[in-house]
Amino acid sequence: MSKSIFYHAGCPVCVSAEHDILNLIGADQVEVVNIGEDRSRLTEAESAGIKSVPALLTPNGNVLHINFGASLEDVKG
Amino acid sequence: MSKSIFYHAGCPVCVSAEHDILNLIGADQVEVVNIGEDRSRLTEAESAGIKSVPALLTPNGNVLHINFGASLEDVKG
Repeated sequence: MSKSIFYHAGCPVCVSAEHDILNLIGADQVEVVNIGEDRSRLTEAESAGIKSVPALLTPNGNVLHINFGASLEDVKG
Repeated sequence: MSKSIFYHAGCPVCVSAEHDILNLIGADQVEVVNIGEDRSRLTEAESAGIKSVPALLTPNGNVLHINFGASLEDVKG
């Protein structure tokens, strides 16, 4: 596994975090998976240790759960 | 502000997340600040919206609070 995987569920908070992560790490270094739409990846995410989204699975298998510090406006979207 | 700032407090969970972040983003793109040791940066961190550590302040001012999904072994250090 050489890329990171960014798991999200399509909510505005996830999208905002996704933009930051892609900008920081580089879009070609990250696979983006929407486990809200692609349920077949949900089991994979759970197996990797993902407990909440958005989360980043690093190439070495660590999970970074990201809490964006969302404002209510973000959640209202 | 062109670099990200990684705020931590020196605990093993922070150190582990720091290694991942520096690997992913690039060490030269991140300033690492230990607010446990450098209290003068604590006010700055609070002003930026940091609520917990480890956290990454992105160049555009967003705060990514990172919960590493720490095991008890990590916390015991």
